Amino acid sequence: MSQRNMFKHTLTASLAAVTVLLARPAFAADAQQMEANKKTVRALYEAALNKKDFDEASKYLGSKYTQHNPNAADGPEGLKGFIGFLKEKFPNNKSEIKRIFADGDYVIVHVHAVREPGTRGNAIIDIFRLENGKVVEHWDVVQPIPEKAANDNGMF
Amino acid sequence: MSQRNMFKHTLTASLAAVTVLLARPAFAADAQQMEANKKTVRALYEAALNKKDFDEASKYLGSKYTQHNPNAADGPEGLKGFIGFLKEKFPNNKSEIKRIFADGDYVIVHVHAVREPGTRGNAIIDIFRLENGKVVEHWDVVQPIPEKAANDNGMF
Repeated sequence: MSQRNMFKHTLTASLAAVTVLLARPAFAADAQQMEANKKTVRALYEAALNKKDFDEASKYLGSKYTQHNPNAADGPEGLKGFIGFLKEKFPNNKSEIKRIFADGDYVIVHVHAVREPGTRGNAIIDIFRLENGKVVEHWDVVQPIPEKAANDNGMF
Repeated sequence: MSQRNMFKHTLTASLAAVTVLLARPAFAADAQQMEANKKTVRALYEAALNKKDFDEASKYLGSKYTQHNPNAADGPEGLKGFIGFLKEKFPNNKSEIKRIFADGDYVIVHVHAVREPGTRGNAIIDIFRLENGKVVEHWDVVQPIPEKAANDNGMF
């Protein structure tokens, strides 16, 4: 192959590689955003459920907070009310994130929540939706951990 | 720049691009595997909970099935027993996947399950872990949908 042809081939390969690269950064950007979203949800959880500090928690919320937990009122104000209830009735509530997942704009956490120390507590899975790195929507499912189980694996 | 130098620079850029590309396919492979995992979990859910067909469901299971639902016995045999219970007691049980997520080896589904037609049913979030495309572990949280709620958003 002449040097000119080799140059042409190398350039073609280069351009092809660059074209593929340009189509890829979405993956890296998505992965980075999903990791950031996980951190945000961890911080929100810690502030709201463990510190019970609405002012700190609200830093992680967007302008809206659509609530699907049937026991909490809608919006940031609903979360404020829920944190107030927790602070008054269950000041020792401790929520531990056992596993955390992210997919697109969603973060999912599997949580062991103990309202009174020494009790078995609840198994909870929460789904949070984020927009621009802020939490804007929440769903969850809550189940008391039973005393006896049909298997020895535990709920986590 | 001489032709020789231009060639050298193009080659260097090419090699850099190829190096980055070689580090990337994991993203594409992961994304493809996660989509396949979602399909497998949808198929398992349909076979087990709606068709209530253990033979079909078992095609999607690995050699083990570690069960964390406290009401089901461990292993594929436990799932067989649960499907038998459903078939006998709640033959009209209908489980509808409302949203599905994947992260690494895990698939998460948010489900509305109605055991008796016309009842409010349960909100369920399941987490499945897969190995080599087969389901090998399961956690879930189940909550009856209450008649009244503190917000108008519904549990889904």
